[in-house]
Amino acid sequence: MNLVLISEEDFIGPGRVRIEGRRFFHIVDVHRAVAGTELCVGLADGCIGTGVITSITGVSVEMDVRLDQKPPQPLPITVVLALPRPKVLRRTLAALSSLGVKRLYLINAYRVEKSYWKSPFLKKDEINRQLALGLEQARDTIMPEVLMRPLFKPFVEDELPAVMQNTIAIAAHPYASTPCPNISGRPATLVIGPEGGFIPYEIEKLHEAGFIPVTFGERILRIETALPYIIARLQ
Amino acid sequence: MNLVLISEEDFIGPGRVRIEGRRFFHIVDVHRAVAGTELCVGLADGCIGTGVITSITGVSVEMDVRLDQKPPQPLPITVVLALPRPKVLRRTLAALSSLGVKRLYLINAYRVEKSYWKSPFLKKDEINRQLALGLEQARDTIMPEVLMRPLFKPFVEDELPAVMQNTIAIAAHPYASTPCPNISGRPATLVIGPEGGFIPYEIEKLHEAGFIPVTFGERILRIETALPYIIARLQ
Repeated sequence: MNLVLISEEDFIGPGRVRIEGRRFFHIVDVHRAVAGTELCVGLADGCIGTGVITSITGVSVEMDVRLDQKPPQPLPITVVLALPRPKVLRRTLAALSSLGVKRLYLINAYRVEKSYWKSPFLKKDEINRQLALGLEQARDTIMPEVLMRPLFKPFVEDELPAVMQNTIAIAAHPYASTPCPNISGRPATLVIGPEGGFIPYEIEKLHEAGFIPVTFGERILRIETALPYIIARLQ
Repeated sequence: MNLVLISEEDFIGPGRVRIEGRRFFHIVDVHRAVAGTELCVGLADGCIGTGVITSITGVSVEMDVRLDQKPPQPLPITVVLALPRPKVLRRTLAALSSLGVKRLYLINAYRVEKSYWKSPFLKKDEINRQLALGLEQARDTIMPEVLMRPLFKPFVEDELPAVMQNTIAIAAHPYASTPCPNISGRPATLVIGPEGGFIPYEIEKLHEAGFIPVTFGERILRIETALPYIIARLQ
């Protein structure tokens, strides 16, 4: 936790917050904070700055906070990801959040197992918990938006055209022959398939929608490795 | 497993192998292979090609293999990594192996917990298991070399100068102000610190050895996310 993410409900007075629960234990056990310790703090969807601890009890800390800096720039990349298996999804949500992705679509594909859609990790609270961990890691405050689209065809035909508008639209596909174009940080929509890849019908539909299937090299990477790798290549 | 990694011991005749154990179960349960199924196969430290299943029993499969293609190019990056905590180490070994890193030094640093050096995951067999998983994922056959250096100062002073010779030597450091130079795939030595970063003394020693401390942006990333991200930026 490189930043303590606070929300409006934590305020107990002007410029003063009280923190309990998970964040409290982290501040005490990992940061080993005492009265006077200064920590990096950020207001959810707001500014970042510093918090100075004024008091610690067995269950909470209080801090005087000053929030005077902007959070890091968001990444201009919308990610459209075939729903990975639940354990991978958790790590992926935190990773994408830390990388600065602000909009993520989780979509269905032929090789996505149906059971994945019933995972408790898809509950809103669980998703937000992972996204918050990513923000705390990267010192960001702007909560990403996660949208679930369990029907591939209607999503690609009816919704994706608007999502990709005015962006460079690429589909990462290990078996494509076109190398990724140099997009140097311009807005992009990045589609990534499931383990085992999209089936030809799905690649065809994405291609019809305007996506260029591109390869990032002959190595097939796990989703956890592929995502930061590809996102870095798009900078 | 996008490639079945075989070794000389698997051969039971010219061009014929018998596979048991973990790989056998994966071939049957995940690939759902039957007699006649063609799989991607690679010989450890050798060529890749195809294997056609000739017979399946309850404990083994036999394949006729033809190995006629070179494995993917290795990545010309030596990674020097402060030993991460054991669970992260496992994932990191597989990820680095899949990315094509062929030489990894695991080093000590002030913020590396001493207990990490006693982890069973540091046993040679465990390390090789994770590296093999990475090769199987990326369709590679060349086993990376992992070297452990539990003393920071002698390593940096006495050994690192030879390691970094004729490479671009950079230390990823979230608090550096120099952005990463454009090295476009040239040979590099990349040093990455522990969670919480190197202490100033360590950065100073690395700087004295010739390393440029560079930043990859204001976001602080977890090691699992930072490694593929940084490696992609060095391509």
